[in-house]
Amino acid sequence: MRALVYHGPGRKAWEDVPDPRIVDDTDAVVRVDAVTICGTDLHILKGDVPEVTPGRILGHEAVGTIEAVGAGVRTRKPGDRVLVSCITACGTCRFCREGRYGQCLGGGGWILGHTIDGTQAERVRVPFADTSTHPVPDGVADEEILMLADILPTGYEVGVLNGGVRPGDVVAVVGSGPIGLSAIMTARLFSPGHVIAIDLADSRLEAAKRFGADITINSSRQDPLEVVQSLTAGLGADVTVEAVGVPAAFEDAVRLVRPGGRVANVGVHGEPVTFHLEKQWIRDVTITTGLVDTGSTPTLLRLVTGHQLDAGQFVTHRFPLSDFDRAYEVFGAAGETGALKVVLTR
Amino acid sequence: MRALVYHGPGRKAWEDVPDPRIVDDTDAVVRVDAVTICGTDLHILKGDVPEVTPGRILGHEAVGTIEAVGAGVRTRKPGDRVLVSCITACGTCRFCREGRYGQCLGGGGWILGHTIDGTQAERVRVPFADTSTHPVPDGVADEEILMLADILPTGYEVGVLNGGVRPGDVVAVVGSGPIGLSAIMTARLFSPGHVIAIDLADSRLEAAKRFGADITINSSRQDPLEVVQSLTAGLGADVTVEAVGVPAAFEDAVRLVRPGGRVANVGVHGEPVTFHLEKQWIRDVTITTGLVDTGSTPTLLRLVTGHQLDAGQFVTHRFPLSDFDRAYEVFGAAGETGALKVVLTR
Repeated sequence: MRALVYHGPGRKAWEDVPDPRIVDDTDAVVRVDAVTICGTDLHILKGDVPEVTPGRILGHEAVGTIEAVGAGVRTRKPGDRVLVSCITACGTCRFCREGRYGQCLGGGGWILGHTIDGTQAERVRVPFADTSTHPVPDGVADEEILMLADILPTGYEVGVLNGGVRPGDVVAVVGSGPIGLSAIMTARLFSPGHVIAIDLADSRLEAAKRFGADITINSSRQDPLEVVQSLTAGLGADVTVEAVGVPAAFEDAVRLVRPGGRVANVGVHGEPVTFHLEKQWIRDVTITTGLVDTGSTPTLLRLVTGHQLDAGQFVTHRFPLSDFDRAYEVFGAAGETGALKVVLTR
Repeated sequence: MRALVYHGPGRKAWEDVPDPRIVDDTDAVVRVDAVTICGTDLHILKGDVPEVTPGRILGHEAVGTIEAVGAGVRTRKPGDRVLVSCITACGTCRFCREGRYGQCLGGGGWILGHTIDGTQAERVRVPFADTSTHPVPDGVADEEILMLADILPTGYEVGVLNGGVRPGDVVAVVGSGPIGLSAIMTARLFSPGHVIAIDLADSRLEAAKRFGADITINSSRQDPLEVVQSLTAGLGADVTVEAVGVPAAFEDAVRLVRPGGRVANVGVHGEPVTFHLEKQWIRDVTITTGLVDTGSTPTLLRLVTGHQLDAGQFVTHRFPLSDFDRAYEVFGAAGETGALKVVLTR
């Protein structure tokens, strides 16, 4: 088959590789029908995620059709259409029993396109198929379902749920890329008072409005602290979400939060950040980090199939599976192309 | 009267000052019967807390006798013996209504010995007397009650409750000064699996054992990470408490915690810290900071009067009120003197 192989920082190629096969009896082999590219893939290509070694097939998001299952797979069979989640879960370890699938100790977690071969390929081996795939419901387009492989549960769980968004809250989201937009869209489920989008690109702030932000701030032209303070009697936002993955965005998320507020870091970071504990020790702030668990995926699937969330609006560009080079170019230059999510289909 | 007055970094004097008087009708004037010195006072004298300006009377912990009350005080009267809490609370603002008294927006919070004159004096004016003092129960020594003015609720609320200590947890406390010891003592209330004390001074680690630590680590001789990992199958502590207030201690608290664990910062910090988000973004950690609210003080008073907590064991040195110079010397050189809390009485 053909697959997108990582060859070290800055290098990748769509090339011939051996077909995947069942290795463990809980595996499935899935034919990839639709796949997308994640901001994390760009971090990998920058060299920010050194666990990804040359030779690895990239990608951790797909919708596909099961072609084969191991003898231990109980609830999936060849022909089933499934969402391949970015998180693989053994289902039985201590952390899986706690619902913390992202931290799976039994060989799962974020492994696809990270420590084992991933989904940016014609086929992919998915371990623990019973607990790492979700049946695709009828009546929803593949490209909508595909948004639930990673970005929607990530923005929701690691941003909105970790941030503890509650009705009436002022929520400030730093970064309006796909993850920031997911946080904005799903924050709306909790009836916040204001959702403030902060970014450097006007095109992304326009998108943020469509996804539910009622206030946008271009931080190259205006200090977000002034806006947030004017809305909150000088206190700061109840919840801030860091959805970029650079030190300046983390520092913004911290300085924008009110005493007693919560900072939810979602961004993938490649270097340490400065935490101004000399100011924050006294302010009762809570900072969370996290990898998505995807425990919310069934709920989000219901919200999407029930048209309470419009997942389709993330998709701005479509390509055939063979055209990864162009898809990465368009996605990587999102500032110019306006790309949110790009979808590649067979 | 005489009082201990701050005159800028490194300088203080026990000197004549005007007697305090009722200013607002919710005030009380309290005669100080017993008072102590806090690690925070040492931070102030180092210049770490720049809001404290020269001329300020220090101190935010006292047990005393009410001498006068304003017309608006409903539940306290002259002659009442009271604990003066480090937190003053208006009782009516948004944050007080949420029980977040430390962040009081109505003129309270940590103000004594900070933004108004404090308790290291013969008398002190206490604003909002109804909600900023606690009646002293019978049958308990003043010096035990005095430990509830700050350190016990701080270790309990900002360390143990923010850290979410639960039965069976491995709890690592970085720093075995009075605040660390308070966290160790009150962590025991939740039946943890292990309480690990980490410090650079063997004398403090000996104290930590008396307060409930079952494992002690002198981090000048042994890497605490090795010990913690060996106890936790390589995962890390469920909860870590930073009870020092220096960058290295914060970094230790973060690197010792397990995926999904909680880091409770209690220390008063004077400079920024490095937060290794390039390692922690993926680990589901929660970091909390906080000023004590003292909402737990009535509970802790019950635990002390019921002999479930032995608050008296904090007190290592006693002085007359006039001897602040010597008391600060002994407390400030705790590494040599073995001082935990020093008590000054009239």
